[in-house]
Amino acid sequence: MTLPTTALLTDRYELTMLGSALRDGTAHRECVFEVFARRLPEGRRYGVVAGTGRLLDALADFRFDDETVTTLREIDAVDDATADHLAGYRFQGDVDGYPEGELYFPHSPVLTVSGTFADAVVLETLALSILNHDCAIASAAARMVTAAAGRPIIEMGSRRTHEQAAVAAARAAYLAGFASTSNLEAARRYGVPTAGTAAHAFTLLHDDERAAFAAQVDALGAGTTLLVDTYDIARGIEHAVEVAGPGLGAVRIDSGDLGVMARHAREQLDGLGATGTKIVVSGDLDEFAIASLGATPVDSYGAGTAVVTGSGAPTAGMVYKLVEVDGRPVEKRSAHKQSHGGRKTALRSHKPSGTAVEEIVVAQRDVTPGEDERPLQLPLVRGGERVAGLPTLEQARRHLREATVTLPWDGLKLSRGEPAIPTRFTHD
Amino acid sequence: MTLPTTALLTDRYELTMLGSALRDGTAHRECVFEVFARRLPEGRRYGVVAGTGRLLDALADFRFDDETVTTLREIDAVDDATADHLAGYRFQGDVDGYPEGELYFPHSPVLTVSGTFADAVVLETLALSILNHDCAIASAAARMVTAAAGRPIIEMGSRRTHEQAAVAAARAAYLAGFASTSNLEAARRYGVPTAGTAAHAFTLLHDDERAAFAAQVDALGAGTTLLVDTYDIARGIEHAVEVAGPGLGAVRIDSGDLGVMARHAREQLDGLGATGTKIVVSGDLDEFAIASLGATPVDSYGAGTAVVTGSGAPTAGMVYKLVEVDGRPVEKRSAHKQSHGGRKTALRSHKPSGTAVEEIVVAQRDVTPGEDERPLQLPLVRGGERVAGLPTLEQARRHLREATVTLPWDGLKLSRGEPAIPTRFTHD
Repeated sequence: MTLPTTALLTDRYELTMLGSALRDGTAHRECVFEVFARRLPEGRRYGVVAGTGRLLDALADFRFDDETVTTLREIDAVDDATADHLAGYRFQGDVDGYPEGELYFPHSPVLTVSGTFADAVVLETLALSILNHDCAIASAAARMVTAAAGRPIIEMGSRRTHEQAAVAAARAAYLAGFASTSNLEAARRYGVPTAGTAAHAFTLLHDDERAAFAAQVDALGAGTTLLVDTYDIARGIEHAVEVAGPGLGAVRIDSGDLGVMARHAREQLDGLGATGTKIVVSGDLDEFAIASLGATPVDSYGAGTAVVTGSGAPTAGMVYKLVEVDGRPVEKRSAHKQSHGGRKTALRSHKPSGTAVEEIVVAQRDVTPGEDERPLQLPLVRGGERVAGLPTLEQARRHLREATVTLPWDGLKLSRGEPAIPTRFTHD
Repeated sequence: MTLPTTALLTDRYELTMLGSALRDGTAHRECVFEVFARRLPEGRRYGVVAGTGRLLDALADFRFDDETVTTLREIDAVDDATADHLAGYRFQGDVDGYPEGELYFPHSPVLTVSGTFADAVVLETLALSILNHDCAIASAAARMVTAAAGRPIIEMGSRRTHEQAAVAAARAAYLAGFASTSNLEAARRYGVPTAGTAAHAFTLLHDDERAAFAAQVDALGAGTTLLVDTYDIARGIEHAVEVAGPGLGAVRIDSGDLGVMARHAREQLDGLGATGTKIVVSGDLDEFAIASLGATPVDSYGAGTAVVTGSGAPTAGMVYKLVEVDGRPVEKRSAHKQSHGGRKTALRSHKPSGTAVEEIVVAQRDVTPGEDERPLQLPLVRGGERVAGLPTLEQARRHLREATVTLPWDGLKLSRGEPAIPTRFTHD
């Protein structure tokens, strides 16, 4: 499934501004917009960049075709000159940004868009929608991956979020280290591995639990996962091993006190000779619930609502701010919000051991990194064309795995705290 | 923009269950699935049904075309027989449900899907994704509309949620009584009125604030809304009236203490003779912030993050449960979750004054309502075909406006509490 034009996923005022700027000639001024979050969600210690790949896909489809322009005329959102301009619109500027899977902190310039005002202003909503959503999910998911301490997590939250957000959430969770997703469209669109066997409905459909298990094993083999808590868990496990034999792949428990249930299930399975049968648990798991099951004989987790809603922080709070016009730094003046004009370069300094020390945001372009510093932005788009060889989803996943290792030891704590490393602004 | 097939917006296990059930013949059993929420989000007093219209659209596009079936075979999600079955799949069952704009309470059966297991099981994820999202947004938005007490609210949260969720959120907020949205695709797809004039970037683009205002007034006329808080609000208002004259449509304030700012702005505008110029405020407004501005001279509100993220409850927590197989009631047994087998009929009883008294959920079909009771479900789909003459978005909006009037007086309070009316289960 590919979406047609993405051009109307846009706030009306972007086109209104464009129209006014075309009239007075300022539309052609060279501008730099930056995307950043002023702060992390309360108590979070790091954020995870995700969505950039999706944004570049959406950018390629950002065109005002005839139907789109007609719509805009009908609702009187643009005048004739603006309509003409949009009909020929094709982003021709540059985009730089943190690669997917990179960590970010307050004021990290995760995306920089440069071009004329006309080029860049219309991308605000699309860029923010994608980054705010995907970063929120990936940032929550990464904490769950840490909490799971190596045990695989299946993302199964599609039903708890918008049907298309579900696909993006599956991608972001996989990027963050989840093992798989329940969402089939995420497999088709992004190649994310999928998992899933049966719901309670399948057991209820049958005359009894044994019949349901027999049907499933017949179709999927003994290596499948049987859901054992529709009626009574102990009896469910008994039926499961009876039907599938001690080579049963796994049992899933979706209700009750999962820690207690997992211990009982392990004992029972071992007693039945099913020592290789794994235990999957699911049911309102967030990073804290996952961590609390660390000492129990759980083999893998299913996470749903918490991951697709960002575990309390459903949006990353990123903004798209104009910072430079024709080479001149600009900034809003406000008592409440710290703003920094001028195009930034971002570096991260590390100790010789690799541990991250500081996020350094320099109000300059073309900064030469110091010995223990590495530049954080990559060129993503040049002259409107996507740069070749950008990191794949698998590479982004690996990048994050490596990046989390560089966090200071308390950066991975689940408890509330300050950002894992400070952000420092400099002018050189 | 129309989306191609919606068939893969589905959890893998639905197809796995289908495959197993096709093998053992249970796929053809007649089933009833119900969608309901076990509880409202913490402290909420009512929910608002939204998304049903979107679901019916998505159902019409739920087909497994060649590419889709090929994908499923490639990822080994289905066997040959299941693939053949899906290639010819077309929902042929019935759907009944609460109309959009109706209130719901814990255990209200907001949607009932009947058909064979094969017909109905595959719709679980799609139905829940749409209803969980749209109901969450509409329920939050309705509280904001109440808090605004007649003043219009513009939905401007697109940038804080997934780009397609944004379109659905704009629709749900409008259904709940918002005046307009910033989202252009919501205008195209659903006819929602749009609004929007300029961001701070437009002021920063120009050499000074006056030049920016002059450009905007030149393009949009003096009736436009000027954003006056880029630098200094008092000076911004001075410039705005200087440029547009006392006939200026409105000023927008997006930062600072909005109540204090609105009072100062009103005095200043009146002093300048701009007594008809309206004041629009925006910036992290939720229902509580909107209510707290009730006594200030604000004319309209812009709401963003809070509405598109459900104001703390980004998902409605609805489930899709099998309740009947071949006429036999079925239910999961669980210590923690109240389940009720059998197909339900829903009624709401009212006092002669119109005030709602109870949500009555009867474990029977074809119940004759008592004198003060009205049935809550409509037929939506019959034999796979959408029923003609279903309520439009405008009708749903009106329905909600009328429904909120029927709530007991404390049902509209913003503070945390119990559901506005109790849900009673009966068997006759």
